[in-house]
Amino acid sequence: MSTKPRFSANINTFNSGADRYVLSGYGERYPTEELIRLATSVPGLSGVELVGLWHVNDQNVEQIRRWVKDAGLIVTCVTPDIWASAKWGKGSFASNDPAIRRDAIQEVKKSMDWAKQLDCEVIDLWFGQDGYDYPFQADYIAGWERIVEGVIECAEHQPDVKIVLEYKPKEPRTHCFIATVGKTLLLVQKVNKPNVGAMIDVGHALMAYENTAESAALLSYFGNKLFYMHFNDNWRLWDDDMTVGSIHIIETLELLYWLDRVGYQGWYALDIFPYRENGVRAATESIRWIQALHGLLDKMGRDEIAKVLASGDAMQGTALIREALLG
Amino acid sequence: MSTKPRFSANINTFNSGADRYVLSGYGERYPTEELIRLATSVPGLSGVELVGLWHVNDQNVEQIRRWVKDAGLIVTCVTPDIWASAKWGKGSFASNDPAIRRDAIQEVKKSMDWAKQLDCEVIDLWFGQDGYDYPFQADYIAGWERIVEGVIECAEHQPDVKIVLEYKPKEPRTHCFIATVGKTLLLVQKVNKPNVGAMIDVGHALMAYENTAESAALLSYFGNKLFYMHFNDNWRLWDDDMTVGSIHIIETLELLYWLDRVGYQGWYALDIFPYRENGVRAATESIRWIQALHGLLDKMGRDEIAKVLASGDAMQGTALIREALLG
Amino acid sequence: MSTKPRFSANINTFNSGADRYVLSGYGERYPTEELIRLATSVPGLSGVELVGLWHVNDQNVEQIRRWVKDAGLIVTCVTPDIWASAKWGKGSFASNDPAIRRDAIQEVKKSMDWAKQLDCEVIDLWFGQDGYDYPFQADYIAGWERIVEGVIECAEHQPDVKIVLEYKPKEPRTHCFIATVGKTLLLVQKVNKPNVGAMIDVGHALMAYENTAESAALLSYFGNKLFYMHFNDNWRLWDDDMTVGSIHIIETLELLYWLDRVGYQGWYALDIFPYRENGVRAATESIRWIQALHGLLDKMGRDEIAKVLASGDAMQGTALIREALLG
Amino acid sequence: MSTKPRFSANINTFNSGADRYVLSGYGERYPTEELIRLATSVPGLSGVELVGLWHVNDQNVEQIRRWVKDAGLIVTCVTPDIWASAKWGKGSFASNDPAIRRDAIQEVKKSMDWAKQLDCEVIDLWFGQDGYDYPFQADYIAGWERIVEGVIECAEHQPDVKIVLEYKPKEPRTHCFIATVGKTLLLVQKVNKPNVGAMIDVGHALMAYENTAESAALLSYFGNKLFYMHFNDNWRLWDDDMTVGSIHIIETLELLYWLDRVGYQGWYALDIFPYRENGVRAATESIRWIQALHGLLDKMGRDEIAKVLASGDAMQGTALIREALLG
Repeated sequence: MSTKPRFSANINTFNSGADRYVLSGYGERYPTEELIRLATSVPGLSGVELVGLWHVNDQNVEQIRRWVKDAGLIVTCVTPDIWASAKWGKGSFASNDPAIRRDAIQEVKKSMDWAKQLDCEVIDLWFGQDGYDYPFQADYIAGWERIVEGVIECAEHQPDVKIVLEYKPKEPRTHCFIATVGKTLLLVQKVNKPNVGAMIDVGHALMAYENTAESAALLSYFGNKLFYMHFNDNWRLWDDDMTVGSIHIIETLELLYWLDRVGYQGWYALDIFPYRENGVRAATESIRWIQALHGLLDKMGRDEIAKVLASGDAMQGTALIREALLG
Repeated sequence: MSTKPRFSANINTFNSGADRYVLSGYGERYPTEELIRLATSVPGLSGVELVGLWHVNDQNVEQIRRWVKDAGLIVTCVTPDIWASAKWGKGSFASNDPAIRRDAIQEVKKSMDWAKQLDCEVIDLWFGQDGYDYPFQADYIAGWERIVEGVIECAEHQPDVKIVLEYKPKEPRTHCFIATVGKTLLLVQKVNKPNVGAMIDVGHALMAYENTAESAALLSYFGNKLFYMHFNDNWRLWDDDMTVGSIHIIETLELLYWLDRVGYQGWYALDIFPYRENGVRAATESIRWIQALHGLLDKMGRDEIAKVLASGDAMQGTALIREALLG
Repeated sequence: MSTKPRFSANINTFNSGADRYVLSGYGERYPTEELIRLATSVPGLSGVELVGLWHVNDQNVEQIRRWVKDAGLIVTCVTPDIWASAKWGKGSFASNDPAIRRDAIQEVKKSMDWAKQLDCEVIDLWFGQDGYDYPFQADYIAGWERIVEGVIECAEHQPDVKIVLEYKPKEPRTHCFIATVGKTLLLVQKVNKPNVGAMIDVGHALMAYENTAESAALLSYFGNKLFYMHFNDNWRLWDDDMTVGSIHIIETLELLYWLDRVGYQGWYALDIFPYRENGVRAATESIRWIQALHGLLDKMGRDEIAKVLASGDAMQGTALIREALLG
Repeated sequence: MSTKPRFSANINTFNSGADRYVLSGYGERYPTEELIRLATSVPGLSGVELVGLWHVNDQNVEQIRRWVKDAGLIVTCVTPDIWASAKWGKGSFASNDPAIRRDAIQEVKKSMDWAKQLDCEVIDLWFGQDGYDYPFQADYIAGWERIVEGVIECAEHQPDVKIVLEYKPKEPRTHCFIATVGKTLLLVQKVNKPNVGAMIDVGHALMAYENTAESAALLSYFGNKLFYMHFNDNWRLWDDDMTVGSIHIIETLELLYWLDRVGYQGWYALDIFPYRENGVRAATESIRWIQALHGLLDKMGRDEIAKVLASGDAMQGTALIREALLG
């Protein structure tokens, strides 16, 4: 039941990270070709994610395809940029402005096309700007109606490209519409297309007081809709985008167990923001942590774990982990 | 579009409150008859909630019916007790023990029967003990399967009694399965019975970083499934069960607006724990706050509010509130 | 006992706001002169805050002095920039690199000099980058020792310029050393200089689960060390930097009461990030909310409030607010 | 620099746990003699904590002394009960009622006397009920003044018994006055007695978004005031009182490192609420986790750790942990 994880990372991992205080970035900026080259220096990394317009566009898609291929990598996901400029500031699919909605859908379709050209199966649909900041600012029902409609239109555009919804409770809006695993599944069911599913971004789920293992189980239970995974870590209350294994070891371990248990076959992609760290080292550490924790599951014994879960005996569970980790 | 709210409260509001430090309670304990009498002393209160076994049972149901009627009150909800004794400590519907599951379902059916005998339309199904405390303690899929199955069985038992699911992210378990508005709607849809819907307990939603107005809109959007409301307030991070209006005035105001907007016709029930306060005063204050905020919506103008929401202009929204509140 | 608040705002309020997703900003960028001009268009605003290097430097300080004066404004605070470029990414006063520490102290001294030249009494010392992101990353004691030493050196540089410490639990680091009102007072006491005190940034305090009124009282109780105030609002869990009055009306009201009660005479400065809002409108709304809530205290009666506080009767408190707000 | 931890636990660990929903408790209740006997069955446990009035009183103190001694145990702490009955519901030392304040101080003095008779060096002063629930409910300055005064009086009563302040942000009040490590140190400094210091309860610190390692360092930095430790774990947002090692392995590891580094010589006491678990097993697991993590520090190398901390290189830190834990 256990598959060996295949790892991917957004090539932006290797670029300078910036935040609202250091807008010019904490590190050095590199061109796309160099970012791809840096990806090849991470042991175990075989896939890369690209962001539409930032890294790939109508002009350079063939060039990018070649660069990635020559680097021995696979494009695992294209992320349409519908959130990184002022234009999208008050929403993309859920904007009150029909022209913005149209453009956002168009942007997603283009990313689906690029994905196809890059032999990439997945696009990542993150509605970061679709939500609201203040009370009495949004018509919630109109927002959902527009998102449902837009996702259906995109799903039909390229039925063989998977649309993976990425939920997040907040940031950049104080409230995002597609906030939790539950809301995401509601959207998936309403849209009701085989090529529309979801990812768990570990940090986003932690912010929502979700247990990622449980969220993975739920996405499986409701129609096998876990299509992709974003790994990172944080201190639970904000999307700190830290390296895997830095805080939540046991929760990550349980997630890895459930990914195998529900037969997850997708990529283990990193979504980290190593603002003050070297991107290659940060990605390398993250992959090593996942590999080591995944290996620990074998040491614990998957049948043994299943027995513990069936018993509901928490002390047996924590002892099993302790013995495997600390002898 | 605006209906005048009708108010209810659990009669336990008027009883001594206890917590894990003061198990013997902060106040005085009263018999059921006295609790009903105390309810009549709260201006504006016309309904009461009862808890199964605590207040109503096979022996006393007729007696209770008469007391409530004589007091001029209506029973708005019966809550089966499937969480307040050691027996349910490791779960009710989702317990690993089939005998416990059986008993829990039986308990709910009894409450449905009592509800019927009391001319009460609603039972409140709260799965407080169904969840887990530790990582590696639960089989999440088994938990959901059992809950789905159990709810279906109950729904079919008395099709004309509404089963209202009450979600809560945690407490008494560190993680409850039916945790958020999204997960609740998933359960409602899976169960797929006309008499199964949900309530929003304001404090539970606040703990989950939900905006209650948005949650009400969602429950309406997905099949008109908002059947009941529990009002209270807290400091956002825990179910403090404080009186309405004590902290989140604007969010409560927006909730009241949306309840009218989606045509909510159900009860405005209080679910407060006035540990150190007099229960009658606490309920009275809560009702006065809701009435006053509801009246403020008229002052603001519901068309005006709709215009603000359609515009997405947060500054217009906050100005509208400020002028109505503070002149 | 009640003084009429005097309002200030960082002139950056009127500039484009950016976050880590929209680095290029949500609005338009303006030159300093225009930002000052925009400040004059906010009713009730009589002060401005400037950031060192961003708005004022050795070359332009006289020019700025004249612009501000001609605009009829007062410079209420100069904030040294020791956090907004990669150089400070791993700390300023607490950096492991002595050269960085030296430069940071130098930067603060320069801001003190500029403050003096601008007839400004206050500089805002915010240690945003002094902290850590990961476990096992920092020597906490060394960090505190360096901060104490650096603040003493700065305090002695210009004894008649007030150094106001601004605490914040996190962001941009996941953990900032000077995180809470308690830690800030420990630092103030350790430094032990008459010109070193603290401010409360409302949003920072809310993130720390502080009640701002209580924090103001504490800063008064321990040596009358509340020197300045930053107003804004948020959803409690992150520094959303929203307009005043948008969420926490009652807590803001209580804060205003205590500011008067402890004899606070300093500025009521806005520190908001109106990313998607017009800065002038956002500042105007914030001031109007503060003015209206301040006025409400008179309506409630300060003696009446004192009586309620002395009684500890929460229901009397909430009724008093309700009647004043909603009649 | 590393001392082998000595372990203690409140004997209540072995008693039935209750919460506000299951007031009658999740398990079985035992008499004190049996609780002491159960303590002896936990491998590695050599100390016990007692609660005043619950376990020890003027009548039975000699009897208790003998039972504990015969069991081969040491009483490490007596906790005065000034929070577990309705009497203290609105405060103990900070109560508005001078008679209650007097009684609370008396209760603490009695616990100090019992501690002395039991050869116990420490009493645990936890102000759980001293705070407030609602805005506009408390006079914060009066509260602090009363607490300062009361602690001084107690400190002088038995100068050779250590008074250990236990801070907690909330529960049972929504806001406790002595809430954070910073506020606790302010109180310690204000009281200024050699026998008054503090403990860190790990779960309370986690709730306050403190890093416990940093809090230990601070308590050392400000006058060597870390006198005692309470271990447990939680999900960060509430005092779940779970077994050690269940969630925050790395933060616990860093704490253990700093306890050694600052020369902490006190007890490693458990403060867990194993509601649904067997108390003996829960205590045993907790001790094994602490022992194993403490041993891991040797494997990592304390000099190596010090080098990493001095470098500030987070990736080196996480790699060091990973290699020690997972090979």
